[in-house]
Amino acid sequence: MLENKNQDLTPISTLGEFGLIRHLTEKFSLKNPSSELGVGDDAAVIFHEGKRMVVSTDLFAEGVHFNLGYVPLKHLGYKTVVANLSDIAAMNAVPTQILVSVAVSNRFPVEALEEIYSGIALACGKYKVDLIGGDTTSSTSGLVMSITAIGAADQDKIVTRKGAQENDLLVVTGDLGGAYLGLQILEREHAVFLANPQMQPEMEGYDYLLERQLKPEARTDVQEILEGLEIVPTAMIDISDGLASEVLHLSKQSEVGFRIYENKVPLDPLTVSTAEEFNISPVMCALNGGEDYELLLTIAPKDFEKIKNHLDFTVIGHAVELSQGNHLVLSGSNELAEITAQGWKHF
Amino acid sequence: MLENKNQDLTPISTLGEFGLIRHLTEKFSLKNPSSELGVGDDAAVIFHEGKRMVVSTDLFAEGVHFNLGYVPLKHLGYKTVVANLSDIAAMNAVPTQILVSVAVSNRFPVEALEEIYSGIALACGKYKVDLIGGDTTSSTSGLVMSITAIGAADQDKIVTRKGAQENDLLVVTGDLGGAYLGLQILEREHAVFLANPQMQPEMEGYDYLLERQLKPEARTDVQEILEGLEIVPTAMIDISDGLASEVLHLSKQSEVGFRIYENKVPLDPLTVSTAEEFNISPVMCALNGGEDYELLLTIAPKDFEKIKNHLDFTVIGHAVELSQGNHLVLSGSNELAEITAQGWKHF
Repeated sequence: MLENKNQDLTPISTLGEFGLIRHLTEKFSLKNPSSELGVGDDAAVIFHEGKRMVVSTDLFAEGVHFNLGYVPLKHLGYKTVVANLSDIAAMNAVPTQILVSVAVSNRFPVEALEEIYSGIALACGKYKVDLIGGDTTSSTSGLVMSITAIGAADQDKIVTRKGAQENDLLVVTGDLGGAYLGLQILEREHAVFLANPQMQPEMEGYDYLLERQLKPEARTDVQEILEGLEIVPTAMIDISDGLASEVLHLSKQSEVGFRIYENKVPLDPLTVSTAEEFNISPVMCALNGGEDYELLLTIAPKDFEKIKNHLDFTVIGHAVELSQGNHLVLSGSNELAEITAQGWKHF
Repeated sequence: MLENKNQDLTPISTLGEFGLIRHLTEKFSLKNPSSELGVGDDAAVIFHEGKRMVVSTDLFAEGVHFNLGYVPLKHLGYKTVVANLSDIAAMNAVPTQILVSVAVSNRFPVEALEEIYSGIALACGKYKVDLIGGDTTSSTSGLVMSITAIGAADQDKIVTRKGAQENDLLVVTGDLGGAYLGLQILEREHAVFLANPQMQPEMEGYDYLLERQLKPEARTDVQEILEGLEIVPTAMIDISDGLASEVLHLSKQSEVGFRIYENKVPLDPLTVSTAEEFNISPVMCALNGGEDYELLLTIAPKDFEKIKNHLDFTVIGHAVELSQGNHLVLSGSNELAEITAQGWKHF
């Protein structure tokens, strides 16, 4: 879209900084009772009577977190919000507000920003969160987005990364590895396109994986499911950098080790077949890929009965003494492989 | 500092993303009772019993908001925090927490980030706010910082931009125009340096202006002063983009016009003499310069007696009917000049 010179595109300079913010945010109305004042003043105002407020922020940079060669701007807006709401969900809290800042070079017309904000609006509607603030500015190159998400929780329901006990069960929501394979497909087809722009990309049949990569969802539904099951996890984290990286975070902060059973890691059939196509192990996609935005939690052994037949959860292992380290129990051989992956290294 | 090849500088890659965050934030301890959980989990946790929470976010991009050719990194860290706390002060709230995200290209060593964070730590100490979260990531070029500030206030003490009434007095804290002239001096000396690196910069005698530009302070003291005087402003905004721009914001949102008396605008003697040196009007520096981070407020006429002899405040004008517009009353002639300046246009 950015390369189509035939369209009448609007330079950002025609609106000015304040005009641009107003233009992009005027269609966002406040829906949460806790959002007392939104965009348009020096600060926004929130009131959560008696609740803990949970706050998280993330920065997304072009060329590092996304490639505009194959990520549509609307999807980018949606996904950046989802990534942040996932952090709120990982605290067992309910997301309520977001603030969004965008830095863009003047190669982006107003219409490009409108696309990003249409994705943000879609996410706000789906997750019932209000956009209450932000900033727009120019940058000397590239697009940078910063999102801050706010949520609310009762004090005794907040779940951190610290709290897993020996013998607790390690549980994951949904299935893993799909987003990573979606990225491999996009990169493959983008490389083909760059080599020969006449070639049609071969995306058919990969819908689920592409959606996992381009339009992931945050598991904000899990808080309610757990409440219904009367389970408060002992620890929780969202899976944004790959299962291995997140397990090591839980291990470090809870001071326990983990055993993960290779044959228990939940994989979609399409993840398995596509991983084979790329000659990689599907479990490695789950361990070292990223951006699945599922939740990884530990629960007390006594809660096993409540969760064992629930379709949203899979028990993949358990906590052991810290000195025993973190290992993958390999299928067949039952040998232990040390988990050392560091997830995505951005630097 | 970045150009000194003789020092042993540490590439960011040696720490990795998680190691870097830990390294930069481990010396920050939590001091506010409302900061229940800080850096190191999916999100931070805050609890302000019965209070409104006030939230603001700003993005700062290299080459747009700052030039690393003459802004020391420690000052940059300090100033970006101050700019955000100023927004919280402008709501008549007390800042309590910040979240800081930084995107840097790999031309920055770990030591550069340490400098930025030492400035952030200095501001946290001075303003008694806790660093409770953030993100670090690489960028394809340049440095981008995103700061989110959180504060607390009683519901009936929050002051927005909306609420100024006809005949209210327009009041400003401190003096204006200094930060803009500080920037002019830095840019002049930087240009001299680029032309001839052997030349020593001529900065002597400009200390106050340079400090206004490089190490501004947020007027978080004003909330307490106003409480002591038993004044709740009818509207308030911080002066980050110049007096003219801020008056127009108050005018638009409060639906009143303003008269500002040219000879009432508070100026430091050094601002006046330096403006003359640059052949510009000192009042224009106050109107169209920026980054003074003073507060602009309106108060009911009945509160005039409480404020008239207070050294922190200057009454510079009053509100009129919206249809009368916004004007500067020129000294001597008493003629009206329309206020149209848009402050800093970043695009």
